[in-house]
Amino acid sequence: MKVLLTGFDPFGGESINPAYQAVKQLPDTIAQAQVIKLELPTSFAGSAQKLEQAMQQHQPDLVICVGQAGGRACITVEKVAINLAEARIPDNDGKQPVDEPICTDGPTAYFSNLPIKAMVQQMQQAGIPAAVSYTAGTYVCNSIFYHLMYTIEKEYPTVRGGFIHVPYESGQVIGKAANTPFMSEAMMVQGLQEAITAALCCKQESKTAMGETH
Amino acid sequence: MKVLLTGFDPFGGESINPAYQAVKQLPDTIAQAQVIKLELPTSFAGSAQKLEQAMQQHQPDLVICVGQAGGRACITVEKVAINLAEARIPDNDGKQPVDEPICTDGPTAYFSNLPIKAMVQQMQQAGIPAAVSYTAGTYVCNSIFYHLMYTIEKEYPTVRGGFIHVPYESGQVIGKAANTPFMSEAMMVQGLQEAITAALCCKQESKTAMGETH
Amino acid sequence: MKVLLTGFDPFGGESINPAYQAVKQLPDTIAQAQVIKLELPTSFAGSAQKLEQAMQQHQPDLVICVGQAGGRACITVEKVAINLAEARIPDNDGKQPVDEPICTDGPTAYFSNLPIKAMVQQMQQAGIPAAVSYTAGTYVCNSIFYHLMYTIEKEYPTVRGGFIHVPYESGQVIGKAANTPFMSEAMMVQGLQEAITAALCCKQESKTAMGETH
Amino acid sequence: MKVLLTGFDPFGGESINPAYQAVKQLPDTIAQAQVIKLELPTSFAGSAQKLEQAMQQHQPDLVICVGQAGGRACITVEKVAINLAEARIPDNDGKQPVDEPICTDGPTAYFSNLPIKAMVQQMQQAGIPAAVSYTAGTYVCNSIFYHLMYTIEKEYPTVRGGFIHVPYESGQVIGKAANTPFMSEAMMVQGLQEAITAALCCKQESKTAMGETH
Repeated sequence: MKVLLTGFDPFGGESINPAYQAVKQLPDTIAQAQVIKLELPTSFAGSAQKLEQAMQQHQPDLVICVGQAGGRACITVEKVAINLAEARIPDNDGKQPVDEPICTDGPTAYFSNLPIKAMVQQMQQAGIPAAVSYTAGTYVCNSIFYHLMYTIEKEYPTVRGGFIHVPYESGQVIGKAANTPFMSEAMMVQGLQEAITAALCCKQESKTAMGETH
Repeated sequence: MKVLLTGFDPFGGESINPAYQAVKQLPDTIAQAQVIKLELPTSFAGSAQKLEQAMQQHQPDLVICVGQAGGRACITVEKVAINLAEARIPDNDGKQPVDEPICTDGPTAYFSNLPIKAMVQQMQQAGIPAAVSYTAGTYVCNSIFYHLMYTIEKEYPTVRGGFIHVPYESGQVIGKAANTPFMSEAMMVQGLQEAITAALCCKQESKTAMGETH
Repeated sequence: MKVLLTGFDPFGGESINPAYQAVKQLPDTIAQAQVIKLELPTSFAGSAQKLEQAMQQHQPDLVICVGQAGGRACITVEKVAINLAEARIPDNDGKQPVDEPICTDGPTAYFSNLPIKAMVQQMQQAGIPAAVSYTAGTYVCNSIFYHLMYTIEKEYPTVRGGFIHVPYESGQVIGKAANTPFMSEAMMVQGLQEAITAALCCKQESKTAMGETH
Repeated sequence: MKVLLTGFDPFGGESINPAYQAVKQLPDTIAQAQVIKLELPTSFAGSAQKLEQAMQQHQPDLVICVGQAGGRACITVEKVAINLAEARIPDNDGKQPVDEPICTDGPTAYFSNLPIKAMVQQMQQAGIPAAVSYTAGTYVCNSIFYHLMYTIEKEYPTVRGGFIHVPYESGQVIGKAANTPFMSEAMMVQGLQEAITAALCCKQESKTAMGETH
């Protein structure tokens, strides 16, 4: 088994992005699966292109993209990617789409086909706050998640894919408003490892996962 | 033109539901359109059935369902309904679906085909805090929104439909945690009237509204 | 009976301050007491000076200062003023004290000698969200509250005084983050009137009000 | 130099209290000072009695009490203790004071005489989110803090004392609302150690610390 993990580079004036910081600290083998780590640009166009290339090159069985959701307190596993790009700030290429579909020939949305509840439960059992989320926003995180599921549907129907959001890392909130939630990098790394293990091992599929409502 | 407006009855231990309280105070004519008001039960099955009957009976041009999102501070116009029923508390029929599709033959999601940004903007210009929301949750609010868009797609392709969430009403937060946001009923009524006016009058359709990504 | 009500002018980049906007809309007579309304500058030094002049000129029986606490959802009646000036942004005179006592010969803190729980309760019974607060911050609001109680203790021992914080007014949060709480100006006006009525009429004093712990 | 550190036992239905959990994991020597650790009961009366006994027995130079502030995201060093006991839930002895002074012959409030800004700064420099707080509430945390400063003023005028609040520990928020902030126990332990080191080593006293405004 082969797992492709991606994390974004910094954006929005932050000097780090804990998503890739955490991804790159994960071991090279999780639950006997080989782990490939990839940094993606925070760019609507660039991230999609680089993800597709990596999927073609590595032919992974499982793809999980990781991004940052500043303001959330716990690790969230996303249920749904929507066919909408709407940016309040420009991406790292200076592009700021407003009310644009991501793929003009794609459906309105995809559900992740990962066992997202099992992933959340396994993180919680390891003592790591986690939850299912029903919106990945409308920025590059949602866009790469949508692209991933679109690519899976069109070209790699046996691949499983999904998206995980991590909170601000502790260092990022120093200087922000005092009540801004955060998570230590060590806990993010541990949480991702638990989630990936659950995604690899869990056979209990969601009744509403990707393929079943089409 | 004919507008069908719905609001839910109370649930979750609350003695009122400001959604229908606000709906029933709206005038019977808005922007020269006739306004029909309907209370729906907070029931996954019952709400869908009652909405379909009302659409058949009244043949509206525009349908807007209104529900409560306790904890939100402003009026939110929903972009997307997802094909998922997941309830943390039973509905008023005692039903508590977990990870169930709403319509087994429906797509993963629908976008509203209303001019939701124009609706938000018109409320804001009238001094009423409002925003677009990208998740209507997974309870009866999302369910009726999904049913509405499914019914429109299958049976009434020229009808326009959407969903609006209102905050707690001021009286509801007395006794709750001190920082729980709320809105006065008078402001909800004014906000809904502005939103409906924009939905009726605005010609500027979203580029990603319902039909276009199919 | 004579009541002196004060509200601040705008600060921190806001174009209005709902504190004085609400104060100036109150009737000129509340519960048979004459109401005098005064706008104070958002200035550590200037506000204290203007308040003292007004107290000397009008000889009020009751003084309530009103300020804005952006981010709070309900009207809060303050319990305690502390002898500390600590400003994250300059006041409207460009002064930005850091870790300074307000009155070098004053005590560490004063409690309000108003019946603050009765005031909160009367607002709530009128349907207006309200709470007791145990911190008025360290900016000009706390400073004028401290000055008021210091002046009462030194010069007007029979006068009763306190401080009320109001949330952002609805128009102020348009353009802010979508979940920023607010209150309509109409509700602020009604809430202040209820609170003043309770302050004038309630005989049930707090066991820990100003004089009793000295 | 001798440091007395206290932490409370669990209350309010929680099975642990991270305050004492973190305290007891600290080393027995910090910055060459001997560290004495004491668990206090979450009881208005019992905590004060046990603290006084320990101060008499150990004759510490520095006393820091640690408690939990569920809902805060970072470690907060408290500035002010107020002479007010007001409990929304009974303490662990079943006592629920309402609007009671803590010490009938005490002043309205005490400021901590610790270098609280230096403590916050040292935690932040170590990458640990921290802030000054201007309210310790009105429950047992504020009460023990007030008792400590009162005891220092009356009996141990050279002793320095203060109070630190820690957030929920990660395990406590699993099962709570998804956006409840928390901190890992490891980070709390590291934060407390940094704060104690700053309290021991920093000579830069606050201009408004305890003694100076009396």
